[in-house]
Amino acid sequence: MDGAHALLETLAAAGVEVCFANPGTTELPLVRALEATPGVRAILGLFEGVCTGAADGYGRMIGRPAATLLHLGPGLANGLANLHNARRAGTPVVNLVGDHATWHLGVDAPLTSDIAGLAAPVSRWVRTAASAAGLAGDGADAVAAARLGGVATLIAPADCQWGDGAEPAPAPAPAVLPRVSESVVAAAADALHAGPAVLLLGDAALAADGLRAAGTVAAATGCRLVAETFPARMERGGGLPAPSRLSYVPELATAELSAAATVVLVGARSPVSFFGYPGLPSSTVPAGTAVATLAEPGADVTEALARLAERVGGPAASRPAVDAGPTGPTGPTGPTVADGKVPADTQPLNPAVIGTVLAGLQPEGAIVVDEAVTTGFPYWALAADAPPHTYLSLTGGAIGQGLPAAAGAAVACPDRKVIAFQADGSGMYTLQALWTQAREALDVLTLICANRSYQILRTELGRAGGSSPGPVASGLTDLGRPDLDWVALAAGMGVPGERATTAGELTAALRRALAEPGPRLVEMVL
Amino acid sequence: MDGAHALLETLAAAGVEVCFANPGTTELPLVRALEATPGVRAILGLFEGVCTGAADGYGRMIGRPAATLLHLGPGLANGLANLHNARRAGTPVVNLVGDHATWHLGVDAPLTSDIAGLAAPVSRWVRTAASAAGLAGDGADAVAAARLGGVATLIAPADCQWGDGAEPAPAPAPAVLPRVSESVVAAAADALHAGPAVLLLGDAALAADGLRAAGTVAAATGCRLVAETFPARMERGGGLPAPSRLSYVPELATAELSAAATVVLVGARSPVSFFGYPGLPSSTVPAGTAVATLAEPGADVTEALARLAERVGGPAASRPAVDAGPTGPTGPTGPTVADGKVPADTQPLNPAVIGTVLAGLQPEGAIVVDEAVTTGFPYWALAADAPPHTYLSLTGGAIGQGLPAAAGAAVACPDRKVIAFQADGSGMYTLQALWTQAREALDVLTLICANRSYQILRTELGRAGGSSPGPVASGLTDLGRPDLDWVALAAGMGVPGERATTAGELTAALRRALAEPGPRLVEMVL
Repeated sequence: MDGAHALLETLAAAGVEVCFANPGTTELPLVRALEATPGVRAILGLFEGVCTGAADGYGRMIGRPAATLLHLGPGLANGLANLHNARRAGTPVVNLVGDHATWHLGVDAPLTSDIAGLAAPVSRWVRTAASAAGLAGDGADAVAAARLGGVATLIAPADCQWGDGAEPAPAPAPAVLPRVSESVVAAAADALHAGPAVLLLGDAALAADGLRAAGTVAAATGCRLVAETFPARMERGGGLPAPSRLSYVPELATAELSAAATVVLVGARSPVSFFGYPGLPSSTVPAGTAVATLAEPGADVTEALARLAERVGGPAASRPAVDAGPTGPTGPTGPTVADGKVPADTQPLNPAVIGTVLAGLQPEGAIVVDEAVTTGFPYWALAADAPPHTYLSLTGGAIGQGLPAAAGAAVACPDRKVIAFQADGSGMYTLQALWTQAREALDVLTLICANRSYQILRTELGRAGGSSPGPVASGLTDLGRPDLDWVALAAGMGVPGERATTAGELTAALRRALAEPGPRLVEMVL
Repeated sequence: MDGAHALLETLAAAGVEVCFANPGTTELPLVRALEATPGVRAILGLFEGVCTGAADGYGRMIGRPAATLLHLGPGLANGLANLHNARRAGTPVVNLVGDHATWHLGVDAPLTSDIAGLAAPVSRWVRTAASAAGLAGDGADAVAAARLGGVATLIAPADCQWGDGAEPAPAPAPAVLPRVSESVVAAAADALHAGPAVLLLGDAALAADGLRAAGTVAAATGCRLVAETFPARMERGGGLPAPSRLSYVPELATAELSAAATVVLVGARSPVSFFGYPGLPSSTVPAGTAVATLAEPGADVTEALARLAERVGGPAASRPAVDAGPTGPTGPTGPTVADGKVPADTQPLNPAVIGTVLAGLQPEGAIVVDEAVTTGFPYWALAADAPPHTYLSLTGGAIGQGLPAAAGAAVACPDRKVIAFQADGSGMYTLQALWTQAREALDVLTLICANRSYQILRTELGRAGGSSPGPVASGLTDLGRPDLDWVALAAGMGVPGERATTAGELTAALRRALAEPGPRLVEMVL
């Protein structure tokens, strides 16, 4: 068989079930191999950032890599931003990129470029296949690398795809997460007993089991639980321990940690300012606070945290027993908004109103993909009391992640309602994802936060002080003139939508949208 | 003054008049400097590929670089595909990319990435500024590098932007194009006299002066004039010499050159197949044909061609005297379609009908940005008889160039009608350009070729023979299910549009659209 068929058979056997694809001529042998490999579902994106963002959302939800299929260097380039986010999330992705036939590279045809050079900054593993016979083995190695968390880029020259004499490769090695030593667990326990501490949680510490173990540790030691600022995936609601979330604003983050003698990192990195500001340090850990590491991201965080809980904690029965329900059913109607919270129907939309309505109506088992940026801040605290749900955030700051990741999450979890809570400015980067949602009939409800500005830049402009923005700075942070019409944009890609401008309209629109399978879109005009 | 202000003053003094920007927090000092530098017009794109594609279209039309302003590695990544096209076109672009403050890079904040590594594959020059005092000089060097043709990437860490003690830098060196030696001109003349020859024209050989000189050479020696397959910019119509255009299909390209004893390259590279195919050579030059080079792309092609014309040709008066009118006025109505060409009003649209209607109605002085791909093939020959106009093509094969380049061309030439002749699949990559066209009130008429497929991939699938595409290959090359509604998409971004399905509807729609200033859009459903 040819290299392409051997590669696809190998990927299918290794549990790669989906390929988010935007192929070109150099990938046509792989397209033919997809035809012959029903175990791998091919899903078309009309822009490569849709494919890579979908692979990120899919991998976060299912814990196994999807494949992408991208066309040469420019196709990869279009997908890099969301691969950057996947890299920061530690999401397993097998990133397949075609290239010219090896013997054609020397003539520098128009589409020739340094693909490996482009891939390196976002990839934990990069390889260019050297032969048709070797391509399937390269694919198995890519799966093994991706399973360790992150992007494995396999560049497949066209002649390695179409060349004959290939066979499927043996199954790739299962991932073995590094185990944390007992002395490290003991040191963390000592730090927790020595004085006020914060457990800073990331990676699997934010899954249900991790949160329960962290809750046990907190109950036993009095430490505070804080989630990292931008978690890749977090289970929330339904009575799970509900850590606060470290602020994006560096001064606030430092203040939030100031009472701690020690910050114990559990699957999180030592916290740093998102940007560097004049006169502020890069680290947001207060000067007098120590940092200890229980488990690096990518280690066996769950197991380490369980041992820590056993070492410091009471019996297992003391842990909260409520299940986070990550695979729970999605009902057509969510719980009603609690009386005390209901904004008046006529109240104009603002971030707090939107957060209240959404947190009140989101159904059990929802997957909330949060790229709402400034509009999303109030929602997070309000959703702690919502029914069990999963929360995905923008890990790498490369905007344009939300709509594609929502599509990928919906492919991974077809029985759950996916809510893309999406800023308008960020949404415009990869709005083509709506078309994929329509073609695949994905159960995604997109909520566009139409504040019609890059509001975070206005905040940052204000932060620097000085005079108020002039017409140039205003123009570069303003999405108006003309206003975007998201209902029309969605209609143009086959997604029905409506517009809401008040709390009452939003509540009604959400009830209607949640009662139907997706995709649907509601433009929330602030 | 701070580094950002010194840089902007330097760029303005060096003739950089436009900055196509999508800034973030790390670029805010440059945003403030734009506020203080009225000589540089800031134009917002809602996706970085819009900014870089616009800079490409602008630079091709005005011959001087625009600046971009992009946000860190992910922002650059989103702009890389159109920088790839600019690189292939030799378009001058000053590609400004912000970075974290130098002292913040070590902590690997979420948006940190290897920006220089990402920039290298598309740039002829890359530099990371090291100080505020040096930033303006770096900018002058970037302009000097871009003037030689291509992308100069300057990475500006935030502290180099906001740091004080900077002054504007001296004006950058003017570009001096390499001059072709007399012996090379003599050798080319000898080749033309020795036997049947083709002049393969690219770069400035496709400008009006170059074409007239080439016409003189052809008249004197009997050589054939052939344009390279994907010219960056070509003047056409109005009686200018009208070379044929080397085919995209390698077998056809080889056949087109088969009668020549020598192919003389004039600002063009030796022709190669766009992709490598099994059993076909990479070069499309026939085995028995020699290749001689008069002038490499980037050399002083115009001057070399003028000397060649003098050496072989008759008097200057024998050259066609018709002016290509590159700065000519745009009338509200173009010439009527010649009687012999008019398709019946009821005829459904196909590539030939579209080409006939467009070539017949396009006004004098139009700039035609051709990313029509398969639908565009018949147009090219038909437009040879159109009024004087400028033609821009997709140089690097990275689709998503047309709508942004049209926006940039319209910024460069506000008195000319820009026609974006645009395939639907390619247009979806950077459809956000329509919003910039609306905000800036750019005189662009976008014609969407809605064949609702990646037709070129279907052609390539058929080329490989074998069985007809199955459902997977069909699905990955089909843009239907659901159909895109380009009129709705345009409306969502503030661009009025209409739909045409027959020759009569298209003729009427074009007349209406050409009678009004842009932006406007016509979806042509094939």
